[in-house]
Amino acid sequence: MAKELMTRAQDYSQWYNDLIIKGDLADYSAVRGCMVIKPYGYALWENMQQTLDKMFKDTGHQNAYFPLFVPKSLFEAEEKNAEGFAKECAIVTHYRLKTDPNNKGKLMVDPEAKLEEELIVRPTSEAIIWNTYKTWIQSYRDLPILVNQWANVVRWEMRTRLFLRTAEFLWQEGHTAHATKEEAIAETEMILDLYADFAENWMAMPVIKGVKTPNERFAGAEDTYCIEALMQDGKALQAGTSHFLGQNFAKAFDVKFSDKNNQLDYVWATSWGVSTRLIGGLVMTHSDDQGLMLPPKIAPLQVVIVPIYKGEEQKALIDVKVKEFVQSFKAAGIRVKYDDSDNQRPGWKFAEYELKGVPVRIAIGARDLENNQVEIARRDTKEKSSVSMDGLTNTVTALLEEIQTNLFERAKQYRDEHITKADTWDEFVKILDTKAGFVSAHWDGSADTEEKIKELSKATIRCIPLNNEQEAGTCILTGNPSTQRVLFARAY
Amino acid sequence: MAKELMTRAQDYSQWYNDLIIKGDLADYSAVRGCMVIKPYGYALWENMQQTLDKMFKDTGHQNAYFPLFVPKSLFEAEEKNAEGFAKECAIVTHYRLKTDPNNKGKLMVDPEAKLEEELIVRPTSEAIIWNTYKTWIQSYRDLPILVNQWANVVRWEMRTRLFLRTAEFLWQEGHTAHATKEEAIAETEMILDLYADFAENWMAMPVIKGVKTPNERFAGAEDTYCIEALMQDGKALQAGTSHFLGQNFAKAFDVKFSDKNNQLDYVWATSWGVSTRLIGGLVMTHSDDQGLMLPPKIAPLQVVIVPIYKGEEQKALIDVKVKEFVQSFKAAGIRVKYDDSDNQRPGWKFAEYELKGVPVRIAIGARDLENNQVEIARRDTKEKSSVSMDGLTNTVTALLEEIQTNLFERAKQYRDEHITKADTWDEFVKILDTKAGFVSAHWDGSADTEEKIKELSKATIRCIPLNNEQEAGTCILTGNPSTQRVLFARAY
Repeated sequence: MAKELMTRAQDYSQWYNDLIIKGDLADYSAVRGCMVIKPYGYALWENMQQTLDKMFKDTGHQNAYFPLFVPKSLFEAEEKNAEGFAKECAIVTHYRLKTDPNNKGKLMVDPEAKLEEELIVRPTSEAIIWNTYKTWIQSYRDLPILVNQWANVVRWEMRTRLFLRTAEFLWQEGHTAHATKEEAIAETEMILDLYADFAENWMAMPVIKGVKTPNERFAGAEDTYCIEALMQDGKALQAGTSHFLGQNFAKAFDVKFSDKNNQLDYVWATSWGVSTRLIGGLVMTHSDDQGLMLPPKIAPLQVVIVPIYKGEEQKALIDVKVKEFVQSFKAAGIRVKYDDSDNQRPGWKFAEYELKGVPVRIAIGARDLENNQVEIARRDTKEKSSVSMDGLTNTVTALLEEIQTNLFERAKQYRDEHITKADTWDEFVKILDTKAGFVSAHWDGSADTEEKIKELSKATIRCIPLNNEQEAGTCILTGNPSTQRVLFARAY
Repeated sequence: MAKELMTRAQDYSQWYNDLIIKGDLADYSAVRGCMVIKPYGYALWENMQQTLDKMFKDTGHQNAYFPLFVPKSLFEAEEKNAEGFAKECAIVTHYRLKTDPNNKGKLMVDPEAKLEEELIVRPTSEAIIWNTYKTWIQSYRDLPILVNQWANVVRWEMRTRLFLRTAEFLWQEGHTAHATKEEAIAETEMILDLYADFAENWMAMPVIKGVKTPNERFAGAEDTYCIEALMQDGKALQAGTSHFLGQNFAKAFDVKFSDKNNQLDYVWATSWGVSTRLIGGLVMTHSDDQGLMLPPKIAPLQVVIVPIYKGEEQKALIDVKVKEFVQSFKAAGIRVKYDDSDNQRPGWKFAEYELKGVPVRIAIGARDLENNQVEIARRDTKEKSSVSMDGLTNTVTALLEEIQTNLFERAKQYRDEHITKADTWDEFVKILDTKAGFVSAHWDGSADTEEKIKELSKATIRCIPLNNEQEAGTCILTGNPSTQRVLFARAY
């Protein structure tokens, strides 16, 4: 083996870190809680970005860019939002360093360069954006505003995990403004569908669409919709959220518009985002003890070709053939690499590309040339087979589609098998402690009960699924009457 | 006129601001020195980004992402670099806000959440990146590293101008690591050519390639190469820089590699960047008193079609025809919009799209339908002509190319006419005060002289052009002997 990896059974958490770091997706940095996204990981993010960006634009959104900093007075304007983020934000207080008179060659913060008003490094941009929208919106003709931003944000988390929870992360945040409540809710729901489409059809990661309980809402939202995914250790991951913000931010920033009848009203708002956290979800949905497993549609590299040869003569013959394949693959839109580097043996390369999750590996040797065939190995099932060189591009294109489908189906089967009903508290706890996954259980609807369940079991209500079946029952904790089951899980 | 604009002759600086703001490129924000990039401006930036990104990738570079923050101890490691940026950096000192006990509903910095080590918001990323490269590089096999980052950076400028000089700006920064000095210099020069190619062939902005004097070098560089453009007011604009960093950062961060003979040596480095500042340069290269003038290759919108009609019946007939054009244009890769909104008259729309710099405007009325023609107006020359509907897509494609070329040729002619030789101090000052532009003059090569010339004339040495003609002469200020002319200008 090229690089030693922890197995899931031994230490799931270490296995995850090994995959991220040894798979070349990201690395720790010198800054507490901040990561370096390495080229391979960033290429994955770029593919995800491009797909989402196109989806946003196809649904009428435009990109813009707002300042990194939020003056404290704006930050605190929407009270709940401020309260929600106050405890975890990086604060700029000074704008200059000077040489330290007591410490040669060192710098110190210049006490004379203190800002009159502190600046918060954005943990999210509602405040700065709604303060801007105030100047953009006068009449219903200025609505809707459908804007998205690709940006970095900072939340000073105490316990961080690569991709899953980092102090700085990359994301997109949509911020839309509407003339009516209905339109804003429709936008919120449309984006939720868009996120689910992306998660399932591009990342091959099945998700459940639902709404959060008031306890779990975004700070400042009237309603938070979410997509929830299930990781291989049975823990849930919130993969994306879409918030109906009501008129909260319009009121906090005094953003009114005159409608067709010249009546003034506050503007209705939504915001929504997904982040580099999705990469963590991707890794934990598909990978195995040999490494990553990237869905073809977003894999930076879809196919790697490795030559197996003795001597330059064999190599030259293989090169000629591979060159044809590479051209044909690229023309078909396949992201392919011919790894003929001579500083590692084929076995090392096989392990390396397995670790990196490249969906399809093609090996080609002298005997294959004679037989007009190549050996294809698929990452998802590890099956190997010899296939004809004739029509290889079509074979590979079809295989990539098959792998994409298989990854989704497999993950969906696992997810579906891990939604378990519990009707008593004992059942509930037992499922969480043994099988894990989502537990579908009755809850009496009170925030106190929700809090107590969390304290006792470390499980939270991940969501109330959309179009949830209404069913009379009794709360697993209190025995109080309940009208529906909700989905609990321990979560990232 | 839709929106009143200042003219260049009246107030050049206000004219520039009017264009940026009324042309919907950007706006001021609530944060001192930071701007909001509006959707139209951001779409322009996206086109520039995509083009540059492809050029970087085609030359072997990969994108990655490094932390926003630089711990003070890393920031100060490369002394010159630290000194160069210490006076203009935003500093994070705390990580939490708390409710202000003396001020209901307000927040204050929690004094108990003071960071042990202050974090600098990156003004540039050499420090954090070379601290990372230390862990990536052991042997010559790990080299070269050809990495680029698209990011926001913060420099606490005291006097800011939209796009040209803002506290936060967006840019790309390339950071490469090499085994030899020659390879690093070749990279620096290759990128300079790439930047010049982009500036001239995409932005239609002629540039002079050169090297900076030691005084004007990037802090921490051994050599700074640059492209310099000339604005319509005769002031120069540094449009991009490519730095040969020698082994300075490798030494500061102790980054060594073992070569093929197992000898340890410090790694050679380059860094290079262009920023949203380019948009300021674009605006001041091509625009006129009626508004922006965007080069077709990067214009968010290349063609706008405006219907001219009385009554719904005429409108319906026009719609049918325009729908065909739009389809055909899009198929040919033309970015087109049909503006049939009914809340503004055609005259208003004409002025608006002129202001926004859309290269080609097509008007189509009932009479045009009868005559099988449309009216085409080009933004660069303001010429209007009636052309046949037959082959309209080809006509427009050719016209867009012609406009792209014309914008460049016109700007180049202006630039070339504004490179003036001066052989005495009086001539030098007179040219700066009357004609402006680049002044080509002899300089004795001393940093003191350069400084004095700057003090006396406010002109700086913009660059020593590449492949500069060697010519004996005497310094315009000191009369000391000189071996070559250099380019002076007042600059942004």
